[in-house]
Formats: sequence, structure tokens, C-alpha cells
Amino acid sequence: MPKQVDHRQRRETIARALWRVVEQQGVRHLTMRDVAQEAGISLGQLQHYFRSRAAMLSFAMDFAGEQTALRVGRALAELPEPPHPRQVLRVMLVELLPLHADARAQSRMSAAYVLEALHDEELHARARDGLLQGRAMVEQVVRQAIADGYIEPDRDPVLETNLLLALTGFTTLLELDAVTPAAALEAVERYLDRLFETEDGPGRD
Amino acid sequence: MPKQVDHRQRRETIARALWRVVEQQGVRHLTMRDVAQEAGISLGQLQHYFRSRAAMLSFAMDFAGEQTALRVGRALAELPEPPHPRQVLRVMLVELLPLHADARAQSRMSAAYVLEALHDEELHARARDGLLQGRAMVEQVVRQAIADGYIEPDRDPVLETNLLLALTGFTTLLELDAVTPAAALEAVERYLDRLFETEDGPGRD
Repeated sequence: MPKQVDHRQRRETIARALWRVVEQQGVRHLTMRDVAQEAGISLGQLQHYFRSRAAMLSFAMDFAGEQTALRVGRALAELPEPPHPRQVLRVMLVELLPLHADARAQSRMSAAYVLEALHDEELHARARDGLLQGRAMVEQVVRQAIADGYIEPDRDPVLETNLLLALTGFTTLLELDAVTPAAALEAVERYLDRLFETEDGPGRD
Repeated sequence: MPKQVDHRQRRETIARALWRVVEQQGVRHLTMRDVAQEAGISLGQLQHYFRSRAAMLSFAMDFAGEQTALRVGRALAELPEPPHPRQVLRVMLVELLPLHADARAQSRMSAAYVLEALHDEELHARARDGLLQGRAMVEQVVRQAIADGYIEPDRDPVLETNLLLALTGFTTLLELDAVTPAAALEAVERYLDRLFETEDGPGRD
């Protein structure tokens, strides 16, 4: 079905144009007209793909989530086999922080989306689902690492997952230049060192 | 100077009206007209106090920062003398999370403000200054706690302060109902337990 592929590609091109506009001018003044201009198409053509600003934002957000998942997947594929769970968690966490252009654009979109979601039930449900999906992946790695002896067995996987995800609070500190990227990365490393401190077990090699 | 006091009070009344509007409908569609209506004054009267939406937002943000500082101060005053640094850090951290109406309104304003600051140098400098001020207070408590033996001497106060502030990432998890308030509070407690784990020293009593 080449037509459907083309439709999908066109929507992705539009989503990328939307990210660039968000990166440059923020989401508040974002209009469908701006995005059409950035994507090099007419407003009518854009409206053919997205009926409303909200529909366009939702797609751009879902697509950003997929792109983050792809980046994480690529980074994980580069780890030595079998990957150490500490490195897996590091990749997952670091790719959520605004440390390079793609991650920054997606992090800003995500922040804007969360704010809009506070006053829109459908967006809220969608943003929550996305977050819970990511949360489940992190929790699975934590549980397996505990089962395999990389993390002490008395650690609670739910609590450890919550703390790991809370560290995405570095986003604001980075965006406001209150910490340097190097300082944020060092803090993440030290945090993971402590999580993986064990009396014995494979984490001790 | 009763007139100046009145001026200040009027601006604070407006700032509180602005918070309510932000709480109810978000910051994106926020106009001076909405705020005037919520504050029960005319648009002309509002413009007498604030020349622009940006000036109004900046004041509301500064005022929110002051109110957070007041809330923290009141909570600290209720601690037994001398307060344990673990309790001080707990109060500082928990008051930044959207766990009750005032803190939630201020947290949402703050998130919106950070997003606008990404595309406005003056707002960026202002938001950064506010964050660095809060950061300095946390770091001072951490340094003193290390000096007094409550926290192990090999901990780096800058890194520990960064990690504590990064835990404000619970904000997004709470706003999207991805963690419960109880789970966020428990994670903060456990995090502080670990920070204050010492071989000996006063933290061990």
C-alpha cells in the first residue's frame, strides 16, 4: 500500500517541521500555519493530514516517543553482549535528558504537552499511557537486575523505578543552565553506582 | 507609604487571580483579560499595574517563589529545635512538588515559565536566578550536614545537591498520575534515608 506509506511519511515530515518550530519559538504561539510554512506545504495540505492543532500535536508527540524509543534501541544495540543492566538504565535515562538537539526538541515538546494535558482529558490519558509504557520498561530492567543479583535483593523495584524516572528532573536544571551537561551526567553515573552497589553477585565483577 | 503598600497588595491580588486562571485553564491561552476578570477589575485597571502579559507573568512567578519560600519557612519553624538537616531537606524538596493546591498552581506556573524562558533571554536569566537561589540554599544545608557528620564526608555536596533537585522530576510523574503522592513521598523518604546513612556521627542517633 504505497499510498498509506506516503501518508505516514508526510505526517512524519510534518511532525519534524513541528519540532523545529517548537525548538525555535516554543509551543505557545505554535499555529498550524507556522508548521505548514516550515514543512513547505500549504495550510490546506497540512489540514488534509491533521484536522486540528491538537491532532497534529498528538501525532508529533507520539512520533517523538517512537523516535526516543528508536534512539534508545540503537544505543542499546551498541552495548557489548550481554548488556549490563546498569548500562541499559543509563541509556534509557540519558536519552530522556535534553543533551542533544533531537532529545532537546522532544523534551520541550513533551513538557509543553504535559502542560496542555493538565486541561485536556484525552491528552492526559495519552501522555499518561506513554509515560507508563516507558516506566514499565525501566521497571522490567530493574526487576531483572535484582533477580540476577546486580542490585541488592532488599531494594523495592517499584520505588527504585520511581526514583530513576524522577531524575528526569535534570531537564529543568539543564534547560536553565543551572547544571552543566557534564555535571548532570556525572550525577546520573554516581546514582547508578550506588544502585548497583552489592555485597556480592555479578555486579561485583 | 500606604499608597505603595496598596499597590503591592493589588499586584499580589492580581498574581493570585492569575494562578487560579493557570490552575483552571493553563497558561497557553492566558490573557490579561482573563486575569482582570478573575481578579474582578477592568482590563484598564490591570494594565495600570502591569504593562504587558510578560510583566504580569514575571511578577506572578516571583511572587510564587516568595510564597514557596514562606511555606518552606513556616514548615521549618514547626520542626523541633535544632532541626535535623534531613527534615530540612525533606521540607524543601516536598514543598516543590505539586502535592497541594498552592504548590500545584506554583509548580504549573513554573513549568510554563520555564518553557517561555527558552525563547526569551530576560525570562531565562530570571528563572535561572530563582533556581540558583533555591539551589544555593539546598547546597548550604548539605554542606553543613556533611560538616556536622550527618552525611558521610566522602559525599560531594555539589553532586548531592544536584541529585536532590533532580528529584523534582516527580512533578511530571505526579501530574500525569503515573505515581501516587504516597509513592512519591515514600521514594523521597527512602532517598533521604540513604543520603543520611552514616557509619557513625550524629545522624546515627
